[in-house]
Amino acid sequence: MTGKSPQESYTIMNELVLPNDTNTLNNLMGGRLLHWMDIAAAISAQKHCNRIVVTASVDNVSFQSPIKLGDVISIEAKVTRAFTTSVEVRMDVWAQNIPSGTKVKSNEAYYTFVALDKDGQKTTVPELVPETDKERALYEGALRRRQLRLILGGKMNPNDATELKALFFGDQLPPNLGEEIKQ
Amino acid sequence: MTGKSPQESYTIMNELVLPNDTNTLNNLMGGRLLHWMDIAAAISAQKHCNRIVVTASVDNVSFQSPIKLGDVISIEAKVTRAFTTSVEVRMDVWAQNIPSGTKVKSNEAYYTFVALDKDGQKTTVPELVPETDKERALYEGALRRRQLRLILGGKMNPNDATELKALFFGDQLPPNLGEEIKQ
Amino acid sequence: MTGKSPQESYTIMNELVLPNDTNTLNNLMGGRLLHWMDIAAAISAQKHCNRIVVTASVDNVSFQSPIKLGDVISIEAKVTRAFTTSVEVRMDVWAQNIPSGTKVKSNEAYYTFVALDKDGQKTTVPELVPETDKERALYEGALRRRQLRLILGGKMNPNDATELKALFFGDQLPPNLGEEIKQ
Amino acid sequence: MTGKSPQESYTIMNELVLPNDTNTLNNLMGGRLLHWMDIAAAISAQKHCNRIVVTASVDNVSFQSPIKLGDVISIEAKVTRAFTTSVEVRMDVWAQNIPSGTKVKSNEAYYTFVALDKDGQKTTVPELVPETDKERALYEGALRRRQLRLILGGKMNPNDATELKALFFGDQLPPNLGEEIKQ
Amino acid sequence: MTGKSPQESYTIMNELVLPNDTNTLNNLMGGRLLHWMDIAAAISAQKHCNRIVVTASVDNVSFQSPIKLGDVISIEAKVTRAFTTSVEVRMDVWAQNIPSGTKVKSNEAYYTFVALDKDGQKTTVPELVPETDKERALYEGALRRRQLRLILGGKMNPNDATELKALFFGDQLPPNLGEEIKQ
Amino acid sequence: MTGKSPQESYTIMNELVLPNDTNTLNNLMGGRLLHWMDIAAAISAQKHCNRIVVTASVDNVSFQSPIKLGDVISIEAKVTRAFTTSVEVRMDVWAQNIPSGTKVKSNEAYYTFVALDKDGQKTTVPELVPETDKERALYEGALRRRQLRLILGGKMNPNDATELKALFFGDQLPPNLGEEIKQ
Repeated sequence: MTGKSPQESYTIMNELVLPNDTNTLNNLMGGRLLHWMDIAAAISAQKHCNRIVVTASVDNVSFQSPIKLGDVISIEAKVTRAFTTSVEVRMDVWAQNIPSGTKVKSNEAYYTFVALDKDGQKTTVPELVPETDKERALYEGALRRRQLRLILGGKMNPNDATELKALFFGDQLPPNLGEEIKQ
Repeated sequence: MTGKSPQESYTIMNELVLPNDTNTLNNLMGGRLLHWMDIAAAISAQKHCNRIVVTASVDNVSFQSPIKLGDVISIEAKVTRAFTTSVEVRMDVWAQNIPSGTKVKSNEAYYTFVALDKDGQKTTVPELVPETDKERALYEGALRRRQLRLILGGKMNPNDATELKALFFGDQLPPNLGEEIKQ
Repeated sequence: MTGKSPQESYTIMNELVLPNDTNTLNNLMGGRLLHWMDIAAAISAQKHCNRIVVTASVDNVSFQSPIKLGDVISIEAKVTRAFTTSVEVRMDVWAQNIPSGTKVKSNEAYYTFVALDKDGQKTTVPELVPETDKERALYEGALRRRQLRLILGGKMNPNDATELKALFFGDQLPPNLGEEIKQ
Repeated sequence: MTGKSPQESYTIMNELVLPNDTNTLNNLMGGRLLHWMDIAAAISAQKHCNRIVVTASVDNVSFQSPIKLGDVISIEAKVTRAFTTSVEVRMDVWAQNIPSGTKVKSNEAYYTFVALDKDGQKTTVPELVPETDKERALYEGALRRRQLRLILGGKMNPNDATELKALFFGDQLPPNLGEEIKQ
Repeated sequence: MTGKSPQESYTIMNELVLPNDTNTLNNLMGGRLLHWMDIAAAISAQKHCNRIVVTASVDNVSFQSPIKLGDVISIEAKVTRAFTTSVEVRMDVWAQNIPSGTKVKSNEAYYTFVALDKDGQKTTVPELVPETDKERALYEGALRRRQLRLILGGKMNPNDATELKALFFGDQLPPNLGEEIKQ
Repeated sequence: MTGKSPQESYTIMNELVLPNDTNTLNNLMGGRLLHWMDIAAAISAQKHCNRIVVTASVDNVSFQSPIKLGDVISIEAKVTRAFTTSVEVRMDVWAQNIPSGTKVKSNEAYYTFVALDKDGQKTTVPELVPETDKERALYEGALRRRQLRLILGGKMNPNDATELKALFFGDQLPPNLGEEIKQ
């Protein structure tokens, strides 16, 4: 299994904001966008893995200015790093108001996916080989984001998060950090 | 505006996993669940605020074991803390397989919402007054989660995250932490 | 198979009234509510039976005041009585207008469901054991509602509806009552 | 406002049973059918009234044999009688299995609708003038069904249901019949 | 396999234009109508073939005056001619504005379908036997429309389109007509 | 109003084929694809016009090999030519089977759209300035396709279709060609 470039998983999805996607102020509901992002990211992950994938986690997503009824949502997704049986996908989301011609960056987000074989068992995925400086930076950062994810998910003792610790936090992380944050 | 108890915003939503919510392995797609959770949490936030609300952020969500076609999703939502114009909502999500009678905890998650008046402007919300020990612990933790959210969203200098810093990290947080994690 | 209490099948479903659920006056369409009620009641019936269930009948439902776009529908469902292979579920439905904080009782309704095994054959279900006075009254009434249902469905000769007859009608029921009402 | 014939409100709706309309045994869920029936009946009622209409009530509906994924549902609707501001619509529902060429009567049902003007106020509707013997029988029966509906909805004292009483029940109806049946 | 009349495949479908079917000017989006027409035509084709069918082609469809939110779409479909393993279906589409009582012809269109057996293989279909003059004219025209379809689809050399050529075009059709029109 | 390049309206849409989009053989229904194509093309047309657009016509579309449940549909759309108040959009559609890694060209199609101002009136659109040879060829062909469209829609006398006539048909086109083909 040879490695693949981020470009091979590059996916664009455009969606029109329809009435049912909005609240009574005609603003797009966040959950609808999270749903579209999951589909866009899953398509990107599947292009990399050539496997059915399932969502494993969603990192912090924050919503800036409201997106309006009739706007066009544009989601660009690319795999940033592959781990043994999973991949991290980064998305950049824009909202375009067509009549006025404006295009506003709405979100950045990271979703991770696990690859499954036909029996639904986890299976190994191809490596991701970054090619540009930007892709290499995202590749490096994936390790830190993964450690934060594992800590927040209560699956890693912060003291083992050497990558995250060395760069940012020093040695003071208590072993139950994830639990206390999640509380 | 007097305070309200978490109980007043308590919301339960049950949803049936239908074919269109699943992938070709008959597993619930993560984005669909994030969408349902957004609706459940928004209903809870609206009960507290008596206002239209819009999603401001979603904290890390991790998905454990797969949820199957035909399962019943049960989402319990409650406001944990109110800030000036926003609230944090915690959700506990279960998946029930009806014929076998199993009920499995699927997710815990925090969504935040901003309250809007009729002109779509941010507006103040009632305080949240925790009543039980568990509610008080969630109320306290909300401050730390908020600081992590602001750092990850690039809206707070880690050095100002006194609450988070004092409890967990010491003084080593570099000013561009959010950017480096996102990047 | 031991009996179960009504509480074990207690189900709450909250739904947000979205644009596609309404007519051009922004009122919730009745059929959409009947659909949600069927899902809520089916979940409740499945909790009691631990079986796949299918809708067998819907009793008279009347709609009072209009429900508006953006309202939150709250459906509470509970099994009231089990028969050999079927259960009756009662629902209480409220509509909440969040900004104004009003909560109005919208409907009461009874749906019945038949339990099926994996091959789609009817199968026996656990008994329902009422615990409170209110639950016992609903349990008793289930017999009369069932006889009315069977008469209206043309499946029972009114003269055999002893329960219904003795309590309410005397002996004058003609044998083709269901047919004449249905026309 | 001159009267209209049942033929002028005659409406046919065909729908294909898709995966999301079915349970895990591939049977059409009852609520989905009730939803389609509401749309078909509302179209029929609107043809008669030339007004926006809202569902006022649904009479007892019983579901016979299961309808399968891929079947074609055929709903025929016609107004049977107009009252001051409302109409009764009768539907006959068939399920067709296309490859095998079978067509099975699935349901008969009555829905009633109230006509609204542009401000959402109740408004008078044209009379219904039956033309065939079958239509005249349905027109006559509408009065009895209306009385049963009002009794079950708690809006009529059974002693005032002269039409229903004279024909079927004698004078023994207790004043709280609706309540006791519902209860 | 004996022939069938157009009447045997006659299908009517009524649909209500809901918010999600419209753009921000409250006009029905063309694609939604094309989708409904595909379902109506497929039901009609299946009635003729008693087989699962799949869409093979859609002829030119033009949209006249805008259709509004709340209008009722009425689609009438009938098989016009059967070929070895396929059928052509003609549809007439009307838009009714209920309160104003207007009914406007919106489209005429031809879709073709291929019949499949249970293994998804093409299979022969019954002949279509036209009965009225109008049906016979549609039956004759089907051959010309089929030739135009094949030319536009690049599957027929215009010189072999004897039917089309003789009637309309003379001998000047160049062999790459379809390609040049598409290109 | 200066001209715009095809690149400025370039739009990609990816969609996942879900159960409700398929028939009982798990093949994508044609109407669903036509619906997605309409949305993709409308987004492209809106990018060019910076106006709300409505579908004016759909040219012949033929469907080749079946597209399966779980496939990813990829639609690429670009404006090929602008007329006074309308634009023609060309789409290329692929179906990707992710696990097997295959990607098959499924359709080519042309949709046209009319641009509307805020009052729903037709309004002029920017010119389209082709830049590559391929774009210039599509730009030239647009005139011929438009004439065929107008003839088939009964809006142009074939004798006035000088462009189409000169290149392909000679002078033999009868004045009622559109009617005879449609009929």
